[in-house]
Amino acid sequence: MRAYLAGPEVFLPNPAAIGRKKKEICEYHGLAGAFPMDAEIDLTGLTPTARGHVIYRADVAMMVSCDLIIANITPFRGPSADVGTAFEMGYMAALGKPVFAYSNVKAGFLDRTRAHFGGALYHRKADGKLADPMDMAVEEFDMADNLMLHGALVEDGLFVHDAPPGSEFTDLVAFEAAVKAAAERYRKAPASAGR
Amino acid sequence: MRAYLAGPEVFLPNPAAIGRKKKEICEYHGLAGAFPMDAEIDLTGLTPTARGHVIYRADVAMMVSCDLIIANITPFRGPSADVGTAFEMGYMAALGKPVFAYSNVKAGFLDRTRAHFGGALYHRKADGKLADPMDMAVEEFDMADNLMLHGALVEDGLFVHDAPPGSEFTDLVAFEAAVKAAAERYRKAPASAGR
Repeated sequence: MRAYLAGPEVFLPNPAAIGRKKKEICEYHGLAGAFPMDAEIDLTGLTPTARGHVIYRADVAMMVSCDLIIANITPFRGPSADVGTAFEMGYMAALGKPVFAYSNVKAGFLDRTRAHFGGALYHRKADGKLADPMDMAVEEFDMADNLMLHGALVEDGLFVHDAPPGSEFTDLVAFEAAVKAAAERYRKAPASAGR
Repeated sequence: MRAYLAGPEVFLPNPAAIGRKKKEICEYHGLAGAFPMDAEIDLTGLTPTARGHVIYRADVAMMVSCDLIIANITPFRGPSADVGTAFEMGYMAALGKPVFAYSNVKAGFLDRTRAHFGGALYHRKADGKLADPMDMAVEEFDMADNLMLHGALVEDGLFVHDAPPGSEFTDLVAFEAAVKAAAERYRKAPASAGR
């Protein structure tokens, strides 16, 4: 079983190193990990936009080659997951492949959204909805992030813990828990059996 | 042709009103618009999490029923698009359905990311990568957002303009441009013909 390892760690100073660690953890638990940056592509001489398109197609091909996805939804530049990771969760969900996720931040979606607005308080509106300082509703579904992300997860497919400050994008404790669960559930079964 | 109308306007104080406007614009151009909140679902007596799951399934069913997606990728609570919208772009891309997008903020991804960090300057690293104050790389692909979102778009499928301040989530000028383009390209053709 091949697991697509989605997450914002592709933006870390040394993404290959964390990709290697993640794949080692997968291997230990009996899964094959596929890390986005492993795609062998030649970007020589391409314009920036063309480079982006080539990487997109390589990542899509890698997703298609995988049986499930383990997504790092640790909040990235805001209260929610990295949008590239969110896109990939949607892509894999549409292909009917099991979606697992983990986050290295335990604070809930409401608290993270409040922190994004510098701690500004929410207000409860006449229709009962909770709104942020921009008067946009904040979801109260007791979910880890926007309902589309959380809704796509397989049952018991979410692993959250508080990584030590500063290691939010490198800590692999919750990741390993997700890998272990995915391996136990799908190591021997075809991906479609779990849905 | 049915267009799935994705975007953070579901969080506006009166989402039904903007949904109606968006569908009127679609109809005017010869498309049928499908707005996430139109799904007829009964959430009575459900726990918050169960409500989230029911809405997820309704939105997925609506996406499956549509021929293409027009996504509002206006930055939402950070430098990037709403993650729910990003998820839906991935979902529709995986189904092989054309992805159009618009944004009501013209500022580029680099400038928006810098603004997210309070204007803090980037630094150029030894390997040539541009990094944010957290030392995470910032993509330089001359794309509107994370490369997965931009990479998924059909050719000439992106419409960006600067909405008047305060109307970033209600202005429909760029939306209408996207609808017009989608209608011209797909009104009479099956969705698969354009890819």
